[in-house]
Amino acid sequence: MLGFASDYMEGAHDKILQRLIDINYVHNTGYGSDYYCRKAARKIARACGSDDVEVEFLSGGTQTNQVVIDALLQPYQGVVSAATGHVAVHEAGAIEFTGHKVIELPAHDGKIDAEELTKLIDDYWNDESHEHMVMPGMVYISQPTEYGTLYSLSELHAISKVCRANGLPLYMDGARLGYALAAQEEMSLRDIVRETDVFYIGGTKVGALIGEAVVFTHHNRPAHFLSIKKQHGALLAKGWLIGIQFDTLFSDDLYMEISRHAVRMAMKMKDGLERKGYSFYIDSPTNQQFIIIGNERMQELKEKVLFSVWGPYDAGSSIIRLATSWATLEEDVDALIDLM
Amino acid sequence: MLGFASDYMEGAHDKILQRLIDINYVHNTGYGSDYYCRKAARKIARACGSDDVEVEFLSGGTQTNQVVIDALLQPYQGVVSAATGHVAVHEAGAIEFTGHKVIELPAHDGKIDAEELTKLIDDYWNDESHEHMVMPGMVYISQPTEYGTLYSLSELHAISKVCRANGLPLYMDGARLGYALAAQEEMSLRDIVRETDVFYIGGTKVGALIGEAVVFTHHNRPAHFLSIKKQHGALLAKGWLIGIQFDTLFSDDLYMEISRHAVRMAMKMKDGLERKGYSFYIDSPTNQQFIIIGNERMQELKEKVLFSVWGPYDAGSSIIRLATSWATLEEDVDALIDLM
Amino acid sequence: MLGFASDYMEGAHDKILQRLIDINYVHNTGYGSDYYCRKAARKIARACGSDDVEVEFLSGGTQTNQVVIDALLQPYQGVVSAATGHVAVHEAGAIEFTGHKVIELPAHDGKIDAEELTKLIDDYWNDESHEHMVMPGMVYISQPTEYGTLYSLSELHAISKVCRANGLPLYMDGARLGYALAAQEEMSLRDIVRETDVFYIGGTKVGALIGEAVVFTHHNRPAHFLSIKKQHGALLAKGWLIGIQFDTLFSDDLYMEISRHAVRMAMKMKDGLERKGYSFYIDSPTNQQFIIIGNERMQELKEKVLFSVWGPYDAGSSIIRLATSWATLEEDVDALIDLM
Amino acid sequence: MLGFASDYMEGAHDKILQRLIDINYVHNTGYGSDYYCRKAARKIARACGSDDVEVEFLSGGTQTNQVVIDALLQPYQGVVSAATGHVAVHEAGAIEFTGHKVIELPAHDGKIDAEELTKLIDDYWNDESHEHMVMPGMVYISQPTEYGTLYSLSELHAISKVCRANGLPLYMDGARLGYALAAQEEMSLRDIVRETDVFYIGGTKVGALIGEAVVFTHHNRPAHFLSIKKQHGALLAKGWLIGIQFDTLFSDDLYMEISRHAVRMAMKMKDGLERKGYSFYIDSPTNQQFIIIGNERMQELKEKVLFSVWGPYDAGSSIIRLATSWATLEEDVDALIDLM
Repeated sequence: MLGFASDYMEGAHDKILQRLIDINYVHNTGYGSDYYCRKAARKIARACGSDDVEVEFLSGGTQTNQVVIDALLQPYQGVVSAATGHVAVHEAGAIEFTGHKVIELPAHDGKIDAEELTKLIDDYWNDESHEHMVMPGMVYISQPTEYGTLYSLSELHAISKVCRANGLPLYMDGARLGYALAAQEEMSLRDIVRETDVFYIGGTKVGALIGEAVVFTHHNRPAHFLSIKKQHGALLAKGWLIGIQFDTLFSDDLYMEISRHAVRMAMKMKDGLERKGYSFYIDSPTNQQFIIIGNERMQELKEKVLFSVWGPYDAGSSIIRLATSWATLEEDVDALIDLM
Repeated sequence: MLGFASDYMEGAHDKILQRLIDINYVHNTGYGSDYYCRKAARKIARACGSDDVEVEFLSGGTQTNQVVIDALLQPYQGVVSAATGHVAVHEAGAIEFTGHKVIELPAHDGKIDAEELTKLIDDYWNDESHEHMVMPGMVYISQPTEYGTLYSLSELHAISKVCRANGLPLYMDGARLGYALAAQEEMSLRDIVRETDVFYIGGTKVGALIGEAVVFTHHNRPAHFLSIKKQHGALLAKGWLIGIQFDTLFSDDLYMEISRHAVRMAMKMKDGLERKGYSFYIDSPTNQQFIIIGNERMQELKEKVLFSVWGPYDAGSSIIRLATSWATLEEDVDALIDLM
Repeated sequence: MLGFASDYMEGAHDKILQRLIDINYVHNTGYGSDYYCRKAARKIARACGSDDVEVEFLSGGTQTNQVVIDALLQPYQGVVSAATGHVAVHEAGAIEFTGHKVIELPAHDGKIDAEELTKLIDDYWNDESHEHMVMPGMVYISQPTEYGTLYSLSELHAISKVCRANGLPLYMDGARLGYALAAQEEMSLRDIVRETDVFYIGGTKVGALIGEAVVFTHHNRPAHFLSIKKQHGALLAKGWLIGIQFDTLFSDDLYMEISRHAVRMAMKMKDGLERKGYSFYIDSPTNQQFIIIGNERMQELKEKVLFSVWGPYDAGSSIIRLATSWATLEEDVDALIDLM
Repeated sequence: MLGFASDYMEGAHDKILQRLIDINYVHNTGYGSDYYCRKAARKIARACGSDDVEVEFLSGGTQTNQVVIDALLQPYQGVVSAATGHVAVHEAGAIEFTGHKVIELPAHDGKIDAEELTKLIDDYWNDESHEHMVMPGMVYISQPTEYGTLYSLSELHAISKVCRANGLPLYMDGARLGYALAAQEEMSLRDIVRETDVFYIGGTKVGALIGEAVVFTHHNRPAHFLSIKKQHGALLAKGWLIGIQFDTLFSDDLYMEISRHAVRMAMKMKDGLERKGYSFYIDSPTNQQFIIIGNERMQELKEKVLFSVWGPYDAGSSIIRLATSWATLEEDVDALIDLM
């Protein structure tokens, strides 16, 4: 079977496994207070080009979204998201579980629009009965989006400007951030630090076993964040397991190197499938590709390729997602193109 | 000033005040265990034409929605509502506060559509990743809607059928139920008992000081409902205060009598304003009327009439809401028509 | 039947009913934005001797505790209370419902001790793993306590000092505050304003139909408090119903007059029962009296008197509670003493 | 430095690391639906001697307690625990965060007593106002306890009997379950399956990198448990990472073998320290030992040994905890005894 189901289907980069073995019998301190977490945080800060960032580690994407959003919002506030945002659709109500409404904006290829955001905020404050409505308290975007698309730097800047004008923290879900950075030269980590208030650098989908690195961009980590993590059931006893992974990913440019590989593989796949006449549901420059395929052909493909069914396209065809990752072999991409 | 701002701007019907005086020094038992609550429940059951209903009293609309929905849903479920539903828009996140997502359906004049409801439910269960999404756990409708419109009996039946086919409780928010029943002869309390699983008969907006009567239609009151109310901060020590009011409202047809009066006043207002050339934002058969009015004219009106601004209509005009109630004087309606 | 079951078993003082009738057809504004709420707030401020207080109205005691505590605590904090405190025992988990632990201190006749409070706070901060424990975030006391006892002014001051030294808001549950003030000359509303950060003046148990007046003592009302109330299902549409009641209670010293009556009746009952040889479970100077009575005698009494069974005292006897109130008739106290 | 700070200070058993390497490039399915999770579940079921158990995997102890307790309780119920229980003290309010009170029983060497449990339940149901109190909804015990002590089989049976007589699920926190099983021959996994309704087999502290295996003992896994995990932010994308670890731990008796090693090391330490005249704060038969030590001596020790300070014992001495684990070297135990 060729594996293109998603980017979290294999373990971790070899270098990470090696480091886990190397330090296996080091007697660490617990709960992220260890040497490796500190070292990883410093390396991430360096990559961010800022002494003002504060870095925290969590285990997975939904957990990170839940903890960060709940920690930043006042209890009576909601988080603004694209209607297709992960927090709006695919977290089984993890945000509402902590008492907060997800306030939806229309999604344009998975992205929100700065003007529509402005209107939403203005409408709230201009409404005579706004005190009876949920106050927008922060803004959530994902980069890349759930559809593999990217905010351009100017789009990000426009949203950031609206957020700052209105005092709303801007939060970027970077579950696949490496693939965004690799696909789009114009936006660097430094840009993200400048434009957002908090974001996370995804590890689970970019070479790590588990783990996400949350970056608070300007000394704005909520007070007592360790207790907040614990209260949410999100504090890992062996915090160093995540620390050592990000220490590795942020050594020798590994994070970007494997991200670039995944995007190169995706572009190769895209070109190959285009040449074979396939249409795409959406034009994605990153590691997720959404292909329109006849239903019969899709059934045949299932016997040889692992992929995700995204939903029906029309009566006779469906949208499937093929994802590359740090672990994708070029020969598998070639085989896939041949096969399809 | 002429008062048409809403239907909860005056106190209570004279008969209710008189009863409160009559029993003021009776030494009752607390928390709704008293004689008057039992008596009111029996009278409501009679009006519902059923021995299977169970009646509970709460203080206000948002509180009732919050307690009933939280009590009926499993923690991992959400409530389906029109995008314009009170629970979706105007309860400051009271549903999310208890951990539940409000799953929105398009609103058609404030109403949901049975086919769209079917599709939403089917889409959930057919989605490969539905376990990562919020499960629809019950359906919320309001009668009349927030726009004064009404579900016809056949519309209600269609929604009810979808709910039963899918095992979802159907809940009707009847904050202004009297005005619905008075405006629409085809639907009676008995019909509502048959088609829904739980609904409430609004008191606050229909002649009572405070209070709503929740009707569980087929011995389906959640176990330990008193503890649930207490836990939500919704258990009134002097429960009989609400009991005596509903006992009065459901004696001598008072609830329907005052409801019919309000609707008659609204229809008189509607006719009068139509004759004077006003357009209506929506065609409402109940006590709330939504009028389109020039912005300048609106400002002038504010000096003589209390009303609600619903929002802008176009560049030069706005939508205002004029509401009648059990307390509306016919002479005030006449004066209003004259004035406008 | 003689009614001594509790102090919330009758309606409201006649003057309050009269005011409700007087303003019944006034077309008010909703949600506590009305004239009567403002007037009541001003009168309460005057009684508090301070221009810095902010007054809010809620419907009942548990609701008030839930909303105030949740509004003042950070999500990761808990509230410190006597183990016998209402929030710890008799609110069906309403505090935990909002995510907060009730951190218990030993109760001494229903009261907490300033030194034990200091130790609890110090122990938390000195514990190596305190970040894994619930941070004490505020202190809850009740005056009178659930056992009818009173903090002396010096006891209150000692607790207040600990709170301020540690930056913890001090909250006083005054469900029966009138009866405390009436029983204890040394402590006035002004003292309470000076020593606490927030407290409430109970109406439900002291002459009102429903309603409690929350007093934030130094411009410290949480921002967006109206939305917070709404989100908790605690915002009354007809807010003026509570406003007019407190306006009445704080006119012509009515609140203190009826409180003094209740305490006088309680002291008469206490003297009478002592003379007849009864022992008391606790020495209460306020309107609740806890009497030890043989089980057989208790059963007989049930046929003629309404009272609360507090629990077993020993094998052959029980503790019962007899409560007076603003509504207690002196002839009933006489009859009770005769009877017992 | 000699490492005895706790049992979660090193990585994982070599065999586990090897397996992670072996399957690193297998393209798995996500969220615990994979082959290794199924295989591990089957092996655990075999070790439990039952076809009726259902096994679920979670990442850490607090997360497991939070998810399991919240999933089993009705929203208005609380969980009964020893006052020293992990859920009562050291989870930063993770249980209250999900809306539930932790109802405390006195701790006897960390354990609850069956008779006191009976009394607590009876007192609740016999209390006239129990509907205003938090209903005990399940019982939490830890084996070994937070103090290293053990319930005997007869103690466990007595508690189990009370739970079943009252319809309360019994939940055993087995964060260190291996060390309990290794220390106490009379109680096997089969006994635990028979006596409890749900328990977890700790991995994080017993040889795994991360991971706990929850065992529902009689087809009583809550419906839609995957959604519940997701909603709590507790669903690991790469579920097989935990599956493969438990598959390894439950092959060739590895879990018990490494557990027996840790207990043997602890007993050696205990004997050695006893011979050197040390007293113990509590008599623990498992891998955690609580030693009383002079404060000066403790300070010296800190330079050479990693341990936990449990708290002051008296003016001049403290209690420290020395823990062995699967990773403890016998030579380190020898060195420790020499040193102390």
